[in-house]
Amino acid sequence: MTVQVIPFADATQDKAAIDVAREAAVALLTQLRARAPRVHCITNTVAQAFTANVLLAVGAVPSMTVSADEIGGFVAGADAVLVNLGTCDAERRAAIRVAVDAAREHGRPWVLDPVMVERSPSRLAFARDLIAQGPVLVRLNASEFAALAGGEESDAAAAARSWATAVALTGAGDRVSDGAYALTVHNGHPLMAKITAMGCAGSALAAAALAVEPDPLPAAVGALVLFGVAGEQAARVSHGPGTFAAAFLDALHGLSPEDVRAAARVSA
Amino acid sequence: MTVQVIPFADATQDKAAIDVAREAAVALLTQLRARAPRVHCITNTVAQAFTANVLLAVGAVPSMTVSADEIGGFVAGADAVLVNLGTCDAERRAAIRVAVDAAREHGRPWVLDPVMVERSPSRLAFARDLIAQGPVLVRLNASEFAALAGGEESDAAAAARSWATAVALTGAGDRVSDGAYALTVHNGHPLMAKITAMGCAGSALAAAALAVEPDPLPAAVGALVLFGVAGEQAARVSHGPGTFAAAFLDALHGLSPEDVRAAARVSA
Amino acid sequence: MTVQVIPFADATQDKAAIDVAREAAVALLTQLRARAPRVHCITNTVAQAFTANVLLAVGAVPSMTVSADEIGGFVAGADAVLVNLGTCDAERRAAIRVAVDAAREHGRPWVLDPVMVERSPSRLAFARDLIAQGPVLVRLNASEFAALAGGEESDAAAAARSWATAVALTGAGDRVSDGAYALTVHNGHPLMAKITAMGCAGSALAAAALAVEPDPLPAAVGALVLFGVAGEQAARVSHGPGTFAAAFLDALHGLSPEDVRAAARVSA
Repeated sequence: MTVQVIPFADATQDKAAIDVAREAAVALLTQLRARAPRVHCITNTVAQAFTANVLLAVGAVPSMTVSADEIGGFVAGADAVLVNLGTCDAERRAAIRVAVDAAREHGRPWVLDPVMVERSPSRLAFARDLIAQGPVLVRLNASEFAALAGGEESDAAAAARSWATAVALTGAGDRVSDGAYALTVHNGHPLMAKITAMGCAGSALAAAALAVEPDPLPAAVGALVLFGVAGEQAARVSHGPGTFAAAFLDALHGLSPEDVRAAARVSA
Repeated sequence: MTVQVIPFADATQDKAAIDVAREAAVALLTQLRARAPRVHCITNTVAQAFTANVLLAVGAVPSMTVSADEIGGFVAGADAVLVNLGTCDAERRAAIRVAVDAAREHGRPWVLDPVMVERSPSRLAFARDLIAQGPVLVRLNASEFAALAGGEESDAAAAARSWATAVALTGAGDRVSDGAYALTVHNGHPLMAKITAMGCAGSALAAAALAVEPDPLPAAVGALVLFGVAGEQAARVSHGPGTFAAAFLDALHGLSPEDVRAAARVSA
Repeated sequence: MTVQVIPFADATQDKAAIDVAREAAVALLTQLRARAPRVHCITNTVAQAFTANVLLAVGAVPSMTVSADEIGGFVAGADAVLVNLGTCDAERRAAIRVAVDAAREHGRPWVLDPVMVERSPSRLAFARDLIAQGPVLVRLNASEFAALAGGEESDAAAAARSWATAVALTGAGDRVSDGAYALTVHNGHPLMAKITAMGCAGSALAAAALAVEPDPLPAAVGALVLFGVAGEQAARVSHGPGTFAAAFLDALHGLSPEDVRAAARVSA
């Protein structure tokens, strides 16, 4: 990816932020299609099919087993890993332990999505423990952030520094920080909140992005721009959440660099 | 909900039945959107995604974990619970026990959907046991009813009295009874039987309805009217089961009170 | 089915192959709709919903439990069984053992889909063991075939003889053999590779086919022709993988014998 030619240090003004994010997203789109990275997803059973279809739509290759005795081989053969805590049963917990160890052993980037940690104390404790294991990126929403953040983590940048990982705090605007720099992605559409697994699939796309762009800030920003632009395109041709979900996959699959450059909306 | 202004005692004639059901459905539509109830669904892995999308389309908020050590927190934070017996593995059974106890402790209404009990003696025995635990509503089809009903339960009303729970026996017409009164909902479309998890999602919508309307008869009737009217709307704009499923979610999301009033078909 | 009036022994020329395959596919389409066979699928959680919708679209009746203590009853009540090794956790493995024994006891045909065996040594060993248990058909792609095939299994026909089962090796062309005869089905569309679970659902359709046509060669060829023709129809009315998936189910549901006869492309 060519994003490094415009350093994030220069993206403190909105104009530079847009330039950086736009080129990160375009480079990501091109690289995903060219390299077809393998992404192993330990994700909840609600999200598996939509997540797999999102990854296929952008050119990545998903796998999804949660069997502890299979997962080592799958992670070793993958280019990036997603750990999503939805429907987090005993088998998934054991698989996550094995997968995180394998990711570390093989040098694979992994993304943590601490789904609904605000609803379960045991899941919250497990998420805290996983953050300490060194994910490259944590992707979460405001409720999940509020549950995980203590007094020191006042925003995404502070959390990134405290947790020593990049953070993507998504919502009406998506705030992304690696602790040093922070950007806000404004792309997206309200219908995205009406489709189950949309956030989970976004985390999977961020994992795919890390397979082709090791720097988490341009990877996460690029993924969120592609995701949001596809959502905006889908909203223009759909009549509700059902046709929106189908149109969203169509849009991801058909995105052109020109579409992305024209539609990216990012601020510092 | 305002349905109590027309008591069900007066709905023994078709004209009054339609009035009651129509207003129950309109009130339900409005309340779901206004209150966004949380519905925790222990449901089969086949049905999870479609069920979540149906709940989101009407304005409810789904959660789906089946982990026994998480489920207490999820049920405590939910407004209603669905117990669906599809793909009923050992973990789901344990989770159901915990969830039913938590629902009782926190006073949450719960709905039982005894999926395919006619195909498995162990599942049938489990369903009988759960009926004795006091669900507010049992939603099932004719094959499931035949397996569960003994000599005393000749129809939905008799079963409701025998089981001490409201019963929604769905099919070409949906017969709903709380033991005292009974109505038949005639809305729906044959393509609904060509989509997996349609019945499961209907049970989830009934659980959402109980979160905003404690009386099971108007809640279940209202849910089935909304479901059937959305199915009729979807059939008009689709070309087969695939586009139907998407159009069905669109229709649920876009239903207006006027649509519901005009299309509701209910008899005594 | 009437396929036996044109023996496969005469299908060594392309012209005869097309005639045989076309009539096998048409007979299959008619029989599935007339007889509504029950197909019990032990399949991965990613594929369950799409697989169920594919079976419903052609007129079959799916069931999907993986609970070891329920599965005997489900297999006994089914007309055919699918064993798919995706997301193959401990519970699925135990269920598969029970299901294969029950299929043998009740004389039910079963299909093996050794998903991604090239990614996991433990899964590969399990697949080899299952092939020795006598499936009627193994459906797999080139990567899976390469992992399973040793020196003796140079192609689908050789593998069919070595494994003593029919083999459908799918890809740009689908090579199907029962060891004695072999045909290649050329129907299909590249978008089919962009939808998760498409191959898994194809294996489920082949299982449904075996419920109404015991000879594995016409059953598998017929299923692959129907699948591929539906894919071609769907591609003509869709705008990407999302609308393609919906259009594919529409097409399967709406296929006419005339459509199938006109579009079937098969060579010897």
